[in-house]
Amino acid sequence: MSAGRDARPLTPTIDPCWLGPAVTAVLRGRHVSLLAAGPVTDTLRQELEAAVGPAGTVGGDLTGEPVLVLARRDLLPDATTLTGPVRRAVDAAHGLGGEGFALVGDGRSAAIVATGERGLLYGYFHLLRSAATAGSADALPTLDVVREPALAIRMINQWDNTSAGDHLGSVERGYAGDSIFFRDGRMVADRRRIADYARLLASVGINAVSINNVNVHPAAVRLLTDGLPDVADVARIFRGFGISTYLSVNFASPLVLGDLPTADPCDASVVAWWAGVAERIHREIPDFGGFVVKANSEGQPGPFDYGRDHVDGANLLAGALAPFGGRVFWRCFVYDHRQDWRDRSTDRARAAHDHFAALDGRFADNVVLQVKCGPMDFQVREPVSPLALAMTRTNTVVEFQITQEYTGQQIDLCCLLPQWQEFLAFDVSGEGGDTLACALARRSASSGVCAVSNIGDDANWTGHKLAQANLYGFGRLAWDPALSPREILDEWVALTFPDAADLHETLVELQLGSWSTYEMYTAPLGVGWMVTPHTHYGPAVDGYEYSKWGTYHFADRDGLGVDRSVATGTGFAGQYPTAWAQRYEHLETCPDELLLFFHHVPYLHRLHTGETVIQHIYDTHVEGARRVVTMRDLWRSLEGRLDDVSWTNVMERLERQVGSAREWRDQVNTYFFRKSGIPDRHGRVIH
Amino acid sequence: MSAGRDARPLTPTIDPCWLGPAVTAVLRGRHVSLLAAGPVTDTLRQELEAAVGPAGTVGGDLTGEPVLVLARRDLLPDATTLTGPVRRAVDAAHGLGGEGFALVGDGRSAAIVATGERGLLYGYFHLLRSAATAGSADALPTLDVVREPALAIRMINQWDNTSAGDHLGSVERGYAGDSIFFRDGRMVADRRRIADYARLLASVGINAVSINNVNVHPAAVRLLTDGLPDVADVARIFRGFGISTYLSVNFASPLVLGDLPTADPCDASVVAWWAGVAERIHREIPDFGGFVVKANSEGQPGPFDYGRDHVDGANLLAGALAPFGGRVFWRCFVYDHRQDWRDRSTDRARAAHDHFAALDGRFADNVVLQVKCGPMDFQVREPVSPLALAMTRTNTVVEFQITQEYTGQQIDLCCLLPQWQEFLAFDVSGEGGDTLACALARRSASSGVCAVSNIGDDANWTGHKLAQANLYGFGRLAWDPALSPREILDEWVALTFPDAADLHETLVELQLGSWSTYEMYTAPLGVGWMVTPHTHYGPAVDGYEYSKWGTYHFADRDGLGVDRSVATGTGFAGQYPTAWAQRYEHLETCPDELLLFFHHVPYLHRLHTGETVIQHIYDTHVEGARRVVTMRDLWRSLEGRLDDVSWTNVMERLERQVGSAREWRDQVNTYFFRKSGIPDRHGRVIH
Repeated sequence: MSAGRDARPLTPTIDPCWLGPAVTAVLRGRHVSLLAAGPVTDTLRQELEAAVGPAGTVGGDLTGEPVLVLARRDLLPDATTLTGPVRRAVDAAHGLGGEGFALVGDGRSAAIVATGERGLLYGYFHLLRSAATAGSADALPTLDVVREPALAIRMINQWDNTSAGDHLGSVERGYAGDSIFFRDGRMVADRRRIADYARLLASVGINAVSINNVNVHPAAVRLLTDGLPDVADVARIFRGFGISTYLSVNFASPLVLGDLPTADPCDASVVAWWAGVAERIHREIPDFGGFVVKANSEGQPGPFDYGRDHVDGANLLAGALAPFGGRVFWRCFVYDHRQDWRDRSTDRARAAHDHFAALDGRFADNVVLQVKCGPMDFQVREPVSPLALAMTRTNTVVEFQITQEYTGQQIDLCCLLPQWQEFLAFDVSGEGGDTLACALARRSASSGVCAVSNIGDDANWTGHKLAQANLYGFGRLAWDPALSPREILDEWVALTFPDAADLHETLVELQLGSWSTYEMYTAPLGVGWMVTPHTHYGPAVDGYEYSKWGTYHFADRDGLGVDRSVATGTGFAGQYPTAWAQRYEHLETCPDELLLFFHHVPYLHRLHTGETVIQHIYDTHVEGARRVVTMRDLWRSLEGRLDDVSWTNVMERLERQVGSAREWRDQVNTYFFRKSGIPDRHGRVIH
Repeated sequence: MSAGRDARPLTPTIDPCWLGPAVTAVLRGRHVSLLAAGPVTDTLRQELEAAVGPAGTVGGDLTGEPVLVLARRDLLPDATTLTGPVRRAVDAAHGLGGEGFALVGDGRSAAIVATGERGLLYGYFHLLRSAATAGSADALPTLDVVREPALAIRMINQWDNTSAGDHLGSVERGYAGDSIFFRDGRMVADRRRIADYARLLASVGINAVSINNVNVHPAAVRLLTDGLPDVADVARIFRGFGISTYLSVNFASPLVLGDLPTADPCDASVVAWWAGVAERIHREIPDFGGFVVKANSEGQPGPFDYGRDHVDGANLLAGALAPFGGRVFWRCFVYDHRQDWRDRSTDRARAAHDHFAALDGRFADNVVLQVKCGPMDFQVREPVSPLALAMTRTNTVVEFQITQEYTGQQIDLCCLLPQWQEFLAFDVSGEGGDTLACALARRSASSGVCAVSNIGDDANWTGHKLAQANLYGFGRLAWDPALSPREILDEWVALTFPDAADLHETLVELQLGSWSTYEMYTAPLGVGWMVTPHTHYGPAVDGYEYSKWGTYHFADRDGLGVDRSVATGTGFAGQYPTAWAQRYEHLETCPDELLLFFHHVPYLHRLHTGETVIQHIYDTHVEGARRVVTMRDLWRSLEGRLDDVSWTNVMERLERQVGSAREWRDQVNTYFFRKSGIPDRHGRVIH
């Protein structure tokens, strides 16, 4: 880096991410009409007023030939009296649900028509995207689209602690500063940042947010009591952006607050206690979303503590919330976190399915099971969770992790859209037919996706400027899982770097290749882990090998990998629908990238590529680290061609990534050379 | 454990350690005379008054036929006028230094005669020990001894932080609660605990203490300024027990305090600054001991920062202290803590000798080099530091670690006296002649030993009741390195458990075997480390293998160990005197217990015992863990035969040690089985 620069932003300004001033330039000085009412409409009016600026106007009817009309369909006059884009949009909007919109533009004017005000908000942001990607920032686009979200639930989970002392800092697994919600045990008084965040989320279609960590430490339980007025105020902010607010709750809350001597879900006093809590919340927050619960997981309390099961636990809370339309998101991340590494018969990958599959159909209608996308824990490569496929009679959201806990912690560039897209496009039966996304959409109006946020109070929100794309892309994929990562990145680059059109392809390619590069230099062939315990950044091949966490690679001098076959292993492969179970069961059909997740093989086992496992390890680690150097050199060459703050931020991160990738390469290759004794075919230095 | 017990002490009483009420019973109701004057005499008078109780008296002359006389030789009348023990003691005390004493007792009366008041204090505690070990608590012993300390410097280093937030808690590497000295950035107001500690230290002959951590965080630098009155008060307490007080100082203090723009030792303003500091301290603490300095070590500032060397740095501080009789303890724990694990030519073991050996003779007279006992860092087994042997023209103290950082953290029982005794008895030339202890005694009147304390504010001081023996034993060995561990433990058991004479041998044996047991189940054959990074408790065979700390075992599928020979390795062996260098250089003569410290060997290499290395690893790990179970079972059988508090405390620790030893056994054996592929000859389960 050149002299005088350092890793700090050069100005203290908060980064607008993909909603910078240029994005609304298309509306500057325009006359716009907005026909709707409600809290979202109020927000939309403010958005429009800011966008048109002093030279434009925002009216409440169709007079004055507005260039843009945003209207609830029921507030428009009879369609036959309308013309142009409005007329076409009214026709197209027929039959839409509350979040859909029709957007028609002919280059001179445009109209957004929807059934509800949230559709108008989403249509508005769609218009901005379209204008930006069309490439001419001040021309209204020509288009004629009807859009509805594919998935009903599109949720963000904050893992924010009410105080930094709680556990693992201000935000658990947060890599972008402190919480924007909480500080020193209280809600942050200045809520502008929260409103900015709500706007970013709404712009990509997020409609639900849980604001506190799923590990609910005692202090955070008070959000249900003393903290409720502040929660209500935050819910008011999110309401304006069409987003429902949820709280993570501690299953033992009645005990923690000292109100009851038990939290047994079958105890009448406990039932009454939760009913009272729900009623009190509803009085303050009429559209309260509900609860997120991590129960009997990694030491959190839950129904098992009273000899009850997950159905008892989830239905208890569901019963309390049902009268007010609230939901319970019950996490399925339940496994034995005090496993004995000596015991090869216990398999953490099996745990969620073993715990929950048999309970299908027994949960209340307003219970939503929250299932991690893979069977382990957000590794760079995992098969899809068999539980996500299995619960056909239960509302399900699949949980992703935007924050890069195991994928570089926003130091390393790792655009996760290709991974998420693979999960959502997974062929559920293995014989053609529904993708996972389709299956979720079909399952119920209370199914969808959620994800752990990657933001904090860093000026650029995500620590690594380019990690903003993961937040953006999650929302976009949740809305439309058929979008390709490239399409999403095309939007994101156009919106985020409106002044760098000449670098558009470079920026898209950098992001697109980064997940694959990260996979190359870290744990090989789906085996996962090999990270530094606790922090989860950087290599430690044996870091979790003799731990209680159920996360092993079983490497010895002859081979490595986890035998999860039915025939000779833990039987995990048998949790899948038959076609997939067969495919994963056999070495001949198991995909290379998941080979070591499903099988223990000798180092000289040949992949479908024809390469041996050991040579594949050497090659990919050398190549992955080389690619990071290439990215770093490329970025260095961009100095002066992007804003200084972004360039400096990414440059600093890439320098660190170069060091980290080198460390991964050398530790992994040395470890396996020392164990296997098999030299690199290309004779490179292995230590 | 039986129902109703837990790990907490059953009463909040502070444990008197080896100075419980029974120890002074021998003096109860006696008439005692004390002829001396000074701060230590004042303490001694209080001790005696408490010991004799209301039925006894403490006089200031020889009238009234005192049963015990403690007298400075120059205050006694002419020897020819004396009779009995006093007369004999006066004769025997001829020519003693200020710390020595003559103690004569004929069973009916006794006399302690010394040149200075500290000698009287040490004689007094010697009398108590003799009475306790004689087995009849209220009979005056019959004895006729002259004792002087073998080593002039017998120092304790506290690694106490001024606030817990500083670094690694209240006491760095402390396993017995918080600091008794500091809390929340200030000296603890209630100083009774400090006085109790001073008494414990004096009772085993300690004559110097540094009260704050050698990693001197910015807040602790203020002990030189705002904090000085409190330090002076603590120094007053220690003075009463014949102990000089030292401070650890940050080499960059003039910078940290903001007084100067540099800490360059050759800058005149820096020289003047330190002179001013020393003068100010001396005004408050006339007998101030001096400074302890960790410079250019593990990130601490030092003379290298200004292109100067250790001589410049140490002599700077020595010059400031010299006018007031103070000393500088300059630590030699200097090495590259940002080493690249790929680089096998750099050897941390070499570092201290490489840095300091060539500087011999250039340090000021009041500089004392403080050299860790081994070349690495307090592992369960290391060779003696070659630097400790090399600096023949420089004052030297050898540093031990009483706190069990790498030896079980006062969870595991590990009596370190045999290890220290081996170091002190090391044959310096390798050809017969001086032991290390003799060499230190001969080197100068400013040489000796120091050790990092293991105490905190736990009710029993050391966390593990039996770890008190390490503190006791260090003091006793420092006074007389010729004492055997068994002799010291005989004393300690008799003093500590006066009511359990029937268990004497059991308690001694438990302690005596514990170091060897700990060695068995942890890192094998001197190779060291294999501990969990940062915490240093519990196994992680590869925990430091790919780190920057220079602490590797280089295990691969063929063998393990570090080649430190001159012929093919790092050359470390060549830092020893010729006879030792030759012995360590060659596989044929290298002692088994240090084999992997000096050599990289195949798993099937045969030890001098005839066993292969791999089988030795399997066998010792199984045997070590088995011995811990035996210790635990033995202790369980002692319930009711010792005081409940001690029994419960040790029982709880032994239960944890059983778990830890099992984990060590299985992780180490599995690791090496997976790597070597060589089965256990005895067919035991290896995972």
